[in-house]
Amino acid sequence: MSGEAALLRRLRAMVSDPAARDLMDDVAVLPTMGQQLVLTSDTMVEGVHFRPDDPPETVGWKLAAVNLSDLAAKGAAPNGCLLSYTLAGDDAWDAAFLDGLGRAIGRFGLHLIGGDTVGLPAGAPRVLGLTAIGEVPAGQPVPGRSGARPGDRLYVSGPVGDAGAGLAMLAEGVAEPAELIRAYRVPVPHLTLGQSIALMTHAMMDVSDGLLIDARRMARASACAVEIDTVPLSEPYARYRGSSVEARLAAATAGDDYVLLVALPADREPPHGLIPVGRFKEGEGLSLRLDGKAVHLPERLGFEHG
Amino acid sequence: MSGEAALLRRLRAMVSDPAARDLMDDVAVLPTMGQQLVLTSDTMVEGVHFRPDDPPETVGWKLAAVNLSDLAAKGAAPNGCLLSYTLAGDDAWDAAFLDGLGRAIGRFGLHLIGGDTVGLPAGAPRVLGLTAIGEVPAGQPVPGRSGARPGDRLYVSGPVGDAGAGLAMLAEGVAEPAELIRAYRVPVPHLTLGQSIALMTHAMMDVSDGLLIDARRMARASACAVEIDTVPLSEPYARYRGSSVEARLAAATAGDDYVLLVALPADREPPHGLIPVGRFKEGEGLSLRLDGKAVHLPERLGFEHG
Repeated sequence: MSGEAALLRRLRAMVSDPAARDLMDDVAVLPTMGQQLVLTSDTMVEGVHFRPDDPPETVGWKLAAVNLSDLAAKGAAPNGCLLSYTLAGDDAWDAAFLDGLGRAIGRFGLHLIGGDTVGLPAGAPRVLGLTAIGEVPAGQPVPGRSGARPGDRLYVSGPVGDAGAGLAMLAEGVAEPAELIRAYRVPVPHLTLGQSIALMTHAMMDVSDGLLIDARRMARASACAVEIDTVPLSEPYARYRGSSVEARLAAATAGDDYVLLVALPADREPPHGLIPVGRFKEGEGLSLRLDGKAVHLPERLGFEHG
Repeated sequence: MSGEAALLRRLRAMVSDPAARDLMDDVAVLPTMGQQLVLTSDTMVEGVHFRPDDPPETVGWKLAAVNLSDLAAKGAAPNGCLLSYTLAGDDAWDAAFLDGLGRAIGRFGLHLIGGDTVGLPAGAPRVLGLTAIGEVPAGQPVPGRSGARPGDRLYVSGPVGDAGAGLAMLAEGVAEPAELIRAYRVPVPHLTLGQSIALMTHAMMDVSDGLLIDARRMARASACAVEIDTVPLSEPYARYRGSSVEARLAAATAGDDYVLLVALPADREPPHGLIPVGRFKEGEGLSLRLDGKAVHLPERLGFEHG
């Protein structure tokens, strides 16, 4: 049996949703009942978004997680996904990748319903894409980036910087604290929190490119200014990098955090799980105050795209 | 302005559907009204599914067309699509690709509603993915591969082999007949025909990997045997390659045809546009008769995957 045939057999064993037609058709067929569908597509390139030596099961997990994080930020319940998979001729890698993907989509209720597998020229980096579909009840607002208002408070749903530190540790060959490497390789999407707060937010998105750059994007889309006054760090991060202004700047520009970034009215008691990091103001632009003092913005605020 | 920023500006200029949220959010939000959604995802790899020297506007057109062909085979009306795009650092290529993609999706009513753009390591081949969404009214059957029955007639919606001959001509540096190169680079999905016949078919799919292999797939999924007795050739194909048994075998195994493959009851008058090519029988397997004589099947029936 060829590698591709083995892969297809594994993929078929992963599907149960009738929308998938057992992956024996060229399409998935999804019945709808008047809900709103939330669709997102994220692609990960070997050597760019993951390291060639990352364990393949973590690459599979992460591909699902980064897409699920986008659904989380819209308060959407996961529904189905379509996988675009490049075969690089390493059957063990493919099998482990699918194990990791399967664990993530199984845990969060995202059903594999379709996709495509394609060959690659020899030596070409893998390019792995997932299109994920979530549901929001009809009539329920879907939070965007653009609803924040002057006076709103800005929150995140967890500390930032862990994944960036984990990636740096891998480049340097450092193994501890393992929590940071785990944050880079096996992020957990904040789906339950996203669904529970979607109706009270003015704006919501996930932090994928860095707290500073993503906060500026939300402010721009909302025609506000935003001031960040706190960069929440995890205990392992603070132990490894300290909590100096430099360490906090590194955490706020690292990306790959997959925490929610949430704008709430100032008079709204924040739900459990949200950490205040700043506020929106009249005007435009991003400013940063740490320990009560204005901090000059770094030249690079995060990953520039999108 | 960076190449990526220019690309995003072009992409934003292409969108008008409110589901796209102006591509300023991380997701698309698609309202539904009880219809069935048909979802398909096809990925094209540079050097595998298209030639590095193919004009980029034809690559953009073709990426849309191959996905639209899958919607056509389900009788679905095109709705929205999400693009997964790799940036290889050639702004002119990117712009021309988007022009071609835009022409195809504009012509067939497929709205760009989201996606992702990612960087590539230097020298890596482009990997271009599209997830396309179509609609079928609630309750209307969506034809699959598996409904053909013994006695059914098999039809295609056009000649086969043109695209394969066009690809071979490009490899050989032959420029005429230009129609064959055009068939390879700029296929036209048979959407109107697919929608008009979906309710009368027992089974329908598109021919993407070759008439023989795709007919065998339909027969297998339907637990029938299939006999092919005709390989319809275009006039330019017959002029270029002749119509010998060998020429017809080449046409039936070439792939990239994007015509519809349709099983209809024997007593059903075929609608205009369908060409009879064979019939389903009790049993299993594929057989081929040309000019009234059994023909030994070639070792390679088409492109093996899926």
